[in-house]
Amino acid sequence: MLQPPPAEPGMHEQEIDTPALLLDLDAFEHNLDTMAALLAPTGAKLRAHAKTHKSAVIARQQMARGAVGQCVQKVAEAEALAWGGIPDILVSNQVVGARKLARLVALSGIASVAVCVDDEVQVAACEAAAEAGGIRLTVLVEIDVGAARCGVPPGPPAVALAERIAASPHLIFGGLQAYHGSAQHRRSPEERATAIAGATEAARRTVEQLRQRGLACPIVGGAGTGTFRHEAASGVFTEIQAGSYVFMDADYARNQDPPPFRQSLFVLATVMSRAIPGVCVLDAGHKAVPTDSGMPLVASRPGLRYASASDEHGKLLIEDGGAAPPLGEKLRLVPGHCDPTVDRYDWYVGVRKGRVECLWPTAARGGMA
Amino acid sequence: MLQPPPAEPGMHEQEIDTPALLLDLDAFEHNLDTMAALLAPTGAKLRAHAKTHKSAVIARQQMARGAVGQCVQKVAEAEALAWGGIPDILVSNQVVGARKLARLVALSGIASVAVCVDDEVQVAACEAAAEAGGIRLTVLVEIDVGAARCGVPPGPPAVALAERIAASPHLIFGGLQAYHGSAQHRRSPEERATAIAGATEAARRTVEQLRQRGLACPIVGGAGTGTFRHEAASGVFTEIQAGSYVFMDADYARNQDPPPFRQSLFVLATVMSRAIPGVCVLDAGHKAVPTDSGMPLVASRPGLRYASASDEHGKLLIEDGGAAPPLGEKLRLVPGHCDPTVDRYDWYVGVRKGRVECLWPTAARGGMA
Repeated sequence: MLQPPPAEPGMHEQEIDTPALLLDLDAFEHNLDTMAALLAPTGAKLRAHAKTHKSAVIARQQMARGAVGQCVQKVAEAEALAWGGIPDILVSNQVVGARKLARLVALSGIASVAVCVDDEVQVAACEAAAEAGGIRLTVLVEIDVGAARCGVPPGPPAVALAERIAASPHLIFGGLQAYHGSAQHRRSPEERATAIAGATEAARRTVEQLRQRGLACPIVGGAGTGTFRHEAASGVFTEIQAGSYVFMDADYARNQDPPPFRQSLFVLATVMSRAIPGVCVLDAGHKAVPTDSGMPLVASRPGLRYASASDEHGKLLIEDGGAAPPLGEKLRLVPGHCDPTVDRYDWYVGVRKGRVECLWPTAARGGMA
Repeated sequence: MLQPPPAEPGMHEQEIDTPALLLDLDAFEHNLDTMAALLAPTGAKLRAHAKTHKSAVIARQQMARGAVGQCVQKVAEAEALAWGGIPDILVSNQVVGARKLARLVALSGIASVAVCVDDEVQVAACEAAAEAGGIRLTVLVEIDVGAARCGVPPGPPAVALAERIAASPHLIFGGLQAYHGSAQHRRSPEERATAIAGATEAARRTVEQLRQRGLACPIVGGAGTGTFRHEAASGVFTEIQAGSYVFMDADYARNQDPPPFRQSLFVLATVMSRAIPGVCVLDAGHKAVPTDSGMPLVASRPGLRYASASDEHGKLLIEDGGAAPPLGEKLRLVPGHCDPTVDRYDWYVGVRKGRVECLWPTAARGGMA
């Protein structure tokens, strides 16, 4: 059941029903503009990752500032974006299963779609789905550039898979997917630079070997919010897949030399109990603000520490002479991790200068498949 | 956007689209029957907690086996259950905010509703909401019996709050809420017994002091799946609020002397990559199977360990001579924590003997407010 929106345009922030997903529009637009300005001189294009925002409304604002398309991780996300008017979508992930591939192929009537593979079995499955749909499907080879999760090794195994794609009558070889996920949150700038130097060299070598076999590589995609300046400056990566930059979160803020973006995403929560001395309980537990990357922070309220989360309760400890907020007060939390937090909500509540300005659906929320 | 169901009745389990929330109906019904049989001789009644299952369909099956009603944590959950035909609902939590209280009062036309307080400010707010709605609202006093989260101290502070409720013309004093959440997962049976002995003594003392002031205590509610046999045997608790027993999870299974229920809830996931030696990647990361209580387990597949979760990927390590499953195989995961896992899905897929038998909506999913 779709939940009703927790606010109406014009309301004061303190009138919003909680827990709610707040988007500070000034900070959000600053982040969109900053990324566009940083990428403009590099030649690399933005293909922002929609697994973070789950919203065609936000995707269109990224594209209005120069993004060439969107990445998604799931077919359900590709559907939500295509239905919302996004013309160019890459599933930066494997899609396994005939039913899912058929759904992806079915979108090609209204959007350009592409998908990644890291197994020859998947090349055959993509070929079958594309043939059944009467289309030519663009397929990228995912290479493992250090995350040790998905992806064939760079070099000859990647070239062999690309040749298989190119030899498939209903497929088009689209390039390389070279995302180094685990590098994004390495704390020191040097560690991140080293990791991406290795990823870049692996991609460069593979592109050259493909060229020697007569295969052009239109897309070399990768990068995230923690490392994108390295990939953008590499001369190898053509597309930057950053997602979190639109929102930021407490975990990215813990990076040394953190990304140059403002915190725009918050969970608004209400003080619901003050019965225990030194404790203040919020109506936002880990169902409302996931803790996979640590506890949320209380924004702009020193002396209040979000110490633990249960299903529906967040326990704040009052420390360092902090003042306990009154029952009913609404506080902004900075999520530990923006992606799963967004996925908990049906609505963004866009606020500017303390007032609700807009409500946007998280249309791809819960898009499991 | 409500996602379409990932299966149809009659399908084989291996045909279900993934990630999906699987309910093994034989194990589920065993759990319903077992709880009913365990409570029957005690005199304590089941008021099962719907924050776990989020489903009026499941709630009705609990009530058909003798449950007197349901607990919820949120007004949105109360709404979903009342709309689904559940006649008696206790919000076992504080409801802070005039708009939420008005929604709760508005349900009283179709269901008996009750709510908890732990602050005199909340007694006044409940009185105002009940008066505005032209009803008498049942209000319980939450006492802190050891969890140090919400609840006034047992004894005189609880009595004072109860007297305030009883003196409010539009409120009815309904009893005590005495849930010891943190006791549920204490690993040793002795620790759990000790914690609940303390909770029981605190509740017994408060009931006696209320009686001395002429206040009857129709409900003394509490208990969870980890401790309910103690509360049920106490002679003090009248209502048992266990929720997880219908499903179980990996964390409850780690208790010594674990609860006498079977694992009925699973996340079905597909092997989507086998490109990295020794690794097998599933399409279920922490968005699909939350990790707040630890990683999920792979059911019935020794030698496969779910080692880490990212947003959409679960990394299995192949250990101890385990066999790597082929690309496309679907595996059952035992969630670390059942409550937030259910809340990730729009649908239960009920399976029996390898076939899909039913699809039930998680109607209260995402009910934040």
